[in-house]
Amino acid sequence: MDLYFMPLAGSLAGRIALYAAGAEARYIEVDPNTKRTSDGNDFAEIYPLALVPLLRCEDGSLLGENAAVLQYIANRYPEARLAPIDQIERARLQQWLSFTSTELHQGLFCQLFDQDASEGTRAHALNKSQSRLNYLDDHLSGREFLLDSFTVADAYLYTVLSWSVPTRVPLTPYPSIKKYCRRLRRRPSIAGAFQEEPALYRGQLARHEAGVRPTPWY
Amino acid sequence: MDLYFMPLAGSLAGRIALYAAGAEARYIEVDPNTKRTSDGNDFAEIYPLALVPLLRCEDGSLLGENAAVLQYIANRYPEARLAPIDQIERARLQQWLSFTSTELHQGLFCQLFDQDASEGTRAHALNKSQSRLNYLDDHLSGREFLLDSFTVADAYLYTVLSWSVPTRVPLTPYPSIKKYCRRLRRRPSIAGAFQEEPALYRGQLARHEAGVRPTPWY
Repeated sequence: MDLYFMPLAGSLAGRIALYAAGAEARYIEVDPNTKRTSDGNDFAEIYPLALVPLLRCEDGSLLGENAAVLQYIANRYPEARLAPIDQIERARLQQWLSFTSTELHQGLFCQLFDQDASEGTRAHALNKSQSRLNYLDDHLSGREFLLDSFTVADAYLYTVLSWSVPTRVPLTPYPSIKKYCRRLRRRPSIAGAFQEEPALYRGQLARHEAGVRPTPWY
Repeated sequence: MDLYFMPLAGSLAGRIALYAAGAEARYIEVDPNTKRTSDGNDFAEIYPLALVPLLRCEDGSLLGENAAVLQYIANRYPEARLAPIDQIERARLQQWLSFTSTELHQGLFCQLFDQDASEGTRAHALNKSQSRLNYLDDHLSGREFLLDSFTVADAYLYTVLSWSVPTRVPLTPYPSIKKYCRRLRRRPSIAGAFQEEPALYRGQLARHEAGVRPTPWY
């Protein structure tokens, strides 16, 4: 399997899932500015949306969107138990994957990372996010994970919540979210991914002209 | 099963799926302003996010987010073949459900419906949506559905694309999307849902004070 990724982008969730599954995989870096891949191809030709994650499955087919990529990885490595089998529990996993992608990733952080967004966007997105973060905080109160055990939904949620640092989203009003993040960052799959990608991100910054920040990692 | 819905909102996809499955279901209307349900309850107490769709499954558990709700309906009525069983095809369905919810529903239409969004949001969202709509148009060229047959992803995509009318998103540059919409609206499940919900939407408008439009239906 090949995972096309941009350092510290949403594709980090796929890396965490692959690490947690102990899977053999090739990680192909995509430059967010030039869309060139680390193996010398034009990513926009491979995937016209040019979004990560993109997974090349073992049969050669390509799969985009975290909700699909992460469930595919979980299904491919069932012994890692990264997604429930039971139908209602799997539906619950899909609910959290969707909540994370729509309400947090797209609804909050894509707005904050968007350097071309109009003035006032940041304040409005932060304001709207309060009810979502409150809901999440209530859910995580007294729970270790989103579901009963660690799943790919946690890999995705942790990835997205990690963006609260560069975007300066205060998590202090959400003590259960903060505790969840502190617990999760000690897991070997997450610690391993966060040992790998910040260095790649710094390499990406260094490759671009001084003072020109790469397009942020959403 | 009970489907909590707001007329013409994203929950319309659930109604289409239930009609396509020939399922018995109760449809409980939620007022977008007061959050009161048509059976006299406070929706925010039932579901603190107060978003639709919300499905009350037969075991009484509650399920939110279209990607989860729609796959649950498809799994519950397998004879209607509203979602593929094959693993890679199911992953592809999840990719399209996620694309529709993140890039179109949240990334485009939620921005356009948001009356409190800052100035310039509309132009910026329309601009960003072009690559997404081009990608979709290319995919639909020469295809009848998103996958090989009608699935819940089509129910969701059609619902979201129907919002191009009230938000004045021009679809003329996307001839395959336009043809897709024209084909799909003749399907009994979609025609039936669109016979039902506009009248309910008008009823909702009439119940609110003259001149005060209800919160839009995202």
